[in-house]
Amino acid sequence: MEIKHILPSDIEKTSLGIIKQELTQMGKTLPDDTEATVIRVIHTTADFEYADTMMFSEGAVEKGLEAIKNGAHIVTDTNMALSGISKKTLARFGGEVHCFMADEEVAKEAKERNVTRAYVSMEKAAKLGVPIIYAIGNAPTALIKLKELMDEGYRPELIIGVSVGFVNVVEAKELIINNDKDVPYIVNRGRKGGSGVAAAICNSLLYKLYR
Amino acid sequence: MEIKHILPSDIEKTSLGIIKQELTQMGKTLPDDTEATVIRVIHTTADFEYADTMMFSEGAVEKGLEAIKNGAHIVTDTNMALSGISKKTLARFGGEVHCFMADEEVAKEAKERNVTRAYVSMEKAAKLGVPIIYAIGNAPTALIKLKELMDEGYRPELIIGVSVGFVNVVEAKELIINNDKDVPYIVNRGRKGGSGVAAAICNSLLYKLYR
Repeated sequence: MEIKHILPSDIEKTSLGIIKQELTQMGKTLPDDTEATVIRVIHTTADFEYADTMMFSEGAVEKGLEAIKNGAHIVTDTNMALSGISKKTLARFGGEVHCFMADEEVAKEAKERNVTRAYVSMEKAAKLGVPIIYAIGNAPTALIKLKELMDEGYRPELIIGVSVGFVNVVEAKELIINNDKDVPYIVNRGRKGGSGVAAAICNSLLYKLYR
Repeated sequence: MEIKHILPSDIEKTSLGIIKQELTQMGKTLPDDTEATVIRVIHTTADFEYADTMMFSEGAVEKGLEAIKNGAHIVTDTNMALSGISKKTLARFGGEVHCFMADEEVAKEAKERNVTRAYVSMEKAAKLGVPIIYAIGNAPTALIKLKELMDEGYRPELIIGVSVGFVNVVEAKELIINNDKDVPYIVNRGRKGGSGVAAAICNSLLYKLYR
């Protein structure tokens, strides 16, 4: 195996080209509106399974883009995703990225109530009083809380549900896919997901608007 | 599908138990020294393929633990991995986590030399003059540079090579696996890896020492 010489500026373009080519070879065609998002997730994970498991509600990408253009904030449940999301790009449209997981008050309240910090974080986010895109890369309890908040009348702009893991992850994602409140979603069905996937999905939307 | 009621404090333990059980069902047995690391990577990705593709040089885990106990620093090529690695635990042993990817001087030099920022970051790290564990979750060019530095006599304490992607990723990891300098490695063979995987491997070592 030989190391190929390639200019730094060409690496990403070449990678995205390889992904598209292999998807074609696999006989997978992706809809125009969701293609860039799925490809960016595959770029982040090198896992083509995402082409089959990522679920988008009708018009989810377009609604996400509109929300960003209207200044929506992004709330995530991991500091890794916070670190990976292009905060500068979001800021161009007036939004900020938040993660309350390391917040001491959140930790204290979670302990007192014997719920997860992610659960309390969602309550805190919903009280911000701004339009929010949720990017959940870890805790299924965040998705469960969002479902409860939606049942009480709360409406996120978009839910990116890509929790990863083995306990209530599959189930919590189905709650979002099956939400009857017309809340747009981008969910990776099954166990897989993660902070990197959450950040990649956010960035795929942001890069559609500015790069 | 029903959401299971489970205490926040039991989620991780339950998840790790499910992973062990499924590995057993698949007929996969992992060596005692590497098991915790592989399981933590599966916990982070929900991808059991890692049980087959993670390669450890002889005694790599033990050598990594010794390095941490002796105050080794960790250098990573992504701010997401930096965010995910347990910096408090490393600090107990005197180490710090560094990522130079957002460093302005690194960016400037990379542009002038037409190499990647990751490449320049490795040169900068090697000059720190402290024992270093490298945790490479993204850029194969970081691994390629580390190989060059090793050929010039430089010796990392451990290389965690879990770059992800499609251009030179497979090849760069093989360079580390085939290094003839006896530098210990933990490498995920193939295209898969990522910042989350890099952080999970570091944390699996740190949690063996203190949790």
